[in-house]
Amino acid sequence: MHRYRSHTCGALRESDVGQVARLSGWVHRIRDHGGVLFIDLRDHYGITQCVVDPDSAAFGLAETVRSEWVVRIDGKVRKRPAGTENPDLPTGMVEVYITDMEVLGPAEELPMPVFGDQEYPEETRLKYRYLDLRRERLHNNIMKRGAIIDALRRRMKESGFFEFTTPILTASSPEGARDFLVPSRIHPGRFYALPQAPQQYKQLIMISGFDRYFQIAPCFRDEDPRADRLPGEFYQLDVEMSFVTQEDVFRTMEPVIRDTFKEFADGKPVTEVFPRIPYAEAMLKYGSDKPDLRNPLVIADVSEVFAREDVTFNAFKNVIKSGGVVRAVPAPGAAAQPRSFFDKLNEWARSEGAPGLGYVVFEEEGGQVTGKGPIAKFIPEAAQAALREAAGVKAGDAVFFSAGVEDKAAALAGKARVRIGDELSLSDKDQFAFAWITDFPQYEWNEDEKKIDFSHNPFSMANMDHDAFMALDPSDKERILGITALQYDMVCNGYEMASGSIRNHRPDRMVKAFEIAGYGEKEVMERFGGMYRAFQYGAPPHGGMAAGIDRIVMLLCGAQNLREITLFPMNQRAEDLLLGAPTEVTAKQLRELHIRLNLPEK
Amino acid sequence: MHRYRSHTCGALRESDVGQVARLSGWVHRIRDHGGVLFIDLRDHYGITQCVVDPDSAAFGLAETVRSEWVVRIDGKVRKRPAGTENPDLPTGMVEVYITDMEVLGPAEELPMPVFGDQEYPEETRLKYRYLDLRRERLHNNIMKRGAIIDALRRRMKESGFFEFTTPILTASSPEGARDFLVPSRIHPGRFYALPQAPQQYKQLIMISGFDRYFQIAPCFRDEDPRADRLPGEFYQLDVEMSFVTQEDVFRTMEPVIRDTFKEFADGKPVTEVFPRIPYAEAMLKYGSDKPDLRNPLVIADVSEVFAREDVTFNAFKNVIKSGGVVRAVPAPGAAAQPRSFFDKLNEWARSEGAPGLGYVVFEEEGGQVTGKGPIAKFIPEAAQAALREAAGVKAGDAVFFSAGVEDKAAALAGKARVRIGDELSLSDKDQFAFAWITDFPQYEWNEDEKKIDFSHNPFSMANMDHDAFMALDPSDKERILGITALQYDMVCNGYEMASGSIRNHRPDRMVKAFEIAGYGEKEVMERFGGMYRAFQYGAPPHGGMAAGIDRIVMLLCGAQNLREITLFPMNQRAEDLLLGAPTEVTAKQLRELHIRLNLPEK
Repeated sequence: MHRYRSHTCGALRESDVGQVARLSGWVHRIRDHGGVLFIDLRDHYGITQCVVDPDSAAFGLAETVRSEWVVRIDGKVRKRPAGTENPDLPTGMVEVYITDMEVLGPAEELPMPVFGDQEYPEETRLKYRYLDLRRERLHNNIMKRGAIIDALRRRMKESGFFEFTTPILTASSPEGARDFLVPSRIHPGRFYALPQAPQQYKQLIMISGFDRYFQIAPCFRDEDPRADRLPGEFYQLDVEMSFVTQEDVFRTMEPVIRDTFKEFADGKPVTEVFPRIPYAEAMLKYGSDKPDLRNPLVIADVSEVFAREDVTFNAFKNVIKSGGVVRAVPAPGAAAQPRSFFDKLNEWARSEGAPGLGYVVFEEEGGQVTGKGPIAKFIPEAAQAALREAAGVKAGDAVFFSAGVEDKAAALAGKARVRIGDELSLSDKDQFAFAWITDFPQYEWNEDEKKIDFSHNPFSMANMDHDAFMALDPSDKERILGITALQYDMVCNGYEMASGSIRNHRPDRMVKAFEIAGYGEKEVMERFGGMYRAFQYGAPPHGGMAAGIDRIVMLLCGAQNLREITLFPMNQRAEDLLLGAPTEVTAKQLRELHIRLNLPEK
Repeated sequence: MHRYRSHTCGALRESDVGQVARLSGWVHRIRDHGGVLFIDLRDHYGITQCVVDPDSAAFGLAETVRSEWVVRIDGKVRKRPAGTENPDLPTGMVEVYITDMEVLGPAEELPMPVFGDQEYPEETRLKYRYLDLRRERLHNNIMKRGAIIDALRRRMKESGFFEFTTPILTASSPEGARDFLVPSRIHPGRFYALPQAPQQYKQLIMISGFDRYFQIAPCFRDEDPRADRLPGEFYQLDVEMSFVTQEDVFRTMEPVIRDTFKEFADGKPVTEVFPRIPYAEAMLKYGSDKPDLRNPLVIADVSEVFAREDVTFNAFKNVIKSGGVVRAVPAPGAAAQPRSFFDKLNEWARSEGAPGLGYVVFEEEGGQVTGKGPIAKFIPEAAQAALREAAGVKAGDAVFFSAGVEDKAAALAGKARVRIGDELSLSDKDQFAFAWITDFPQYEWNEDEKKIDFSHNPFSMANMDHDAFMALDPSDKERILGITALQYDMVCNGYEMASGSIRNHRPDRMVKAFEIAGYGEKEVMERFGGMYRAFQYGAPPHGGMAAGIDRIVMLLCGAQNLREITLFPMNQRAEDLLLGAPTEVTAKQLRELHIRLNLPEK
């Protein structure tokens, strides 16, 4: 018989009754039923109920073991007595009568239990992560994470992609966040950077002729702790393809992500065909470039209504006159809400820095629909009808207004849309509602520096043919700010799941794109010399995207925190409490790396 | 039709004749045959011959393109004229008559060509890696690397393993090499280390109850450049299993590695059942713990022969008297070798620091076998017969001797075995000859510090039961130096392919093991506190190994250099010539990281 086990703790069935089995695992729970000990023995594969009584030679030792000791037992598989079967457990029809026991790994008193669902402080959970990881939910989340990554990898391969690994000790990448640096011992005063993303390498892989790249890529950003991002490292499904249009990227990646979600969504619906929403439309209808489409509300522009001569609500009229807009967020059925509903929303709007949320409630009185509320009196009946028409509301509904310069009005309306949707429970949360957001602006106006800047990725291709782009006049601000890029995001339930673009693969066009943003060829060379040089030796058209794996896993596990789906996360202060990092190092190590500490004054 | 291609450059066949095709790719080669241009168009998938003549509207543009320009062409697929087919090319029966062409990515004059096999200096190849990677051999090696990793991953999953990723920003690991350090911005004066191997994490994964772990793991060691190791990062197939014996590791991993080799060995034989050779036997028979078993020579100990009273060769007799040994390396058929063969070997031995290689040549004269050579006269006939018997040689063969303290004599004999095997062409090089080396010593004598040290991995389990080990007397040097560990290497063709052990999973035993090597519990806590603590809360017996992926790929690609099987390697000075790393960083970056430069005097 094997030294440690003939079966795992998840293997025994009724058909094994009568066999002698050897199991090894952790003591999950011990119950003493009048001198008979019931030991639930647990391993990765399951739990088996083991029984020992004073007739067994192993009883004496069995009495000494405690929770989380690792033991080997030998025993006879028998049917559980009628009425004591556990149909929830795959092994629940049988138990093992222990005839021999060996302690393989004893345990001290536990700082936190494994059995049960009790909450423990995060610092304890991270310091004793190996205990936390034995707990059912976290253990399952980590296994699900692995299965999701396997599925993504399998689907990428089935779609004709090849997996490549790119260097981790590399040059600073232009992703805009702060780099982690690694001092070079061999080159005094010089540093490697850990990649914020393999952006340049994946483009170089295309220029090297490999056609379809993907990687489950570790990425590193030295950012201040944020609730929705772990400090240090995170993983991307990083993708790049040659000789493709935006349409090809969508057609290739949409099934990969959709079908992976279907596989792990536990039956929750997943968008079959992802709608494609231009950025400008998303900002209008949802007030966000990552709309939560589970929420059915659609924002409307009602500036025209408030601009009518017969409407006399001057606060909004003045906004419109000075170039602003008024947006309307419908609140279906809100007429039935108490006054406090409207007051709370107004209060919230003020906490967001707005003067408040104007609103009109529509009620039916004597066959006639009438607007009520503080500003209704400034809107005559005909204008109210136009308002209902524009905002898509009817009697029994309300409509809230957000007015101001377009960006701010849109953003506030977007937040109000989320809030109203939540307050009125309009969303079916148990679904995964995807969309592509397209046509992001290539450039934006930097009000602080009074100059044109890249909006997003400087490597993205403007949606404009080569000659027209090369002919652009950098001083034609209006035209330039109207240029959209072949840049897109994939969103789900209000989160950005992936981001990508078709890249600018021509060096002359790269220089032109940077020139528009106020950078000379010298700066292009300095910041992206390797890429710029590579573009000069036959670069194919290419594009791709990167999807956030941690975010995908979090959504599919229904977890609220990235630490619930990460094996050995750091805490929010970027410390590894388990092995103890970061640590002090020796003077010799510093000397070898040609650095000295420069500590802040205490 | 698709914007860039209806087919890849590897797709068209005779059955496509008559179709209109659109292809995109790199201009691999252009030939001008009397005004008719033949353009071989290349992409990742293959090469298609395209033709254009002055009757085509595309002729003018086609005349301007050069090697490595990226172009799109439209054209009609037609059968190649009889006699011009190329059966070596999958597309070799057809060509495409170009009717339209578009330049997608022009190329400057190339610093190195893609077409052809001409050698280029390594610095050029690394700086223009994307050109080098387009070349057939390197392109294929990189694809083969990916396929090998896919196969390893697939086989690991089929063997019931789960893939986990472990942190890259972590604490210093006790692998003994130098760490790469990453200064912490948030914790002034403290540093993360990049993992030299995920050793501690994989053991913690076992303690967390995950049972079977593997990872294609990036590992980092800041070592001085070595011919057989790339600077910076390398990849391991990292494996760990719970509730296993050494036998389980062998039975699980031997098929994974063997079958992966078979899959990619292009028909070369691969050892079916890996012999298991205890370390002591390997050192005796092969003078190495990574023997090349393609070489049929087996070293023998002939100390007894030289210790005989009738043998009068005092140089060896004195060695034996003072506790040394004499080892014999057979040289089958060497009697036919010219004098220079023996002289060269002697010279080589002196270059290795030995006084020379004594030898005896056995020849048959008149039905009698006689030993010849400088020391034969000191060995009477009966002793010569014993020597032939011990060394396994016969008339026509020679035997070489290595004498001295055991370690040195064994090592020199091992090197002589390799040399003699090569000189006499005794090895069939076209095979993969595997073995397990087992029973490594747990401890060794540190002559400098006059103390007992760990031989290899301090985490390995001694091959001794718990109570016996706990009862060891640390001053019982002889007994302790005789202890073997459950530690093993997998070797192939003279290389170490993998290394592993059954781990010591008991904290009391860990303290005892360190005590024997002269370390107190405090040092255990300081160096391995996280692990030591973890062992106290129910650790399962576990073990595993790590295989060098770069080495596996190198052997299977028949490459001589790790840079031939690595996508974006650094040069031997640990520089990335493509993107330019390491680089200088700004004063602001240094300040944020709480460090200052400490440059050597110029």
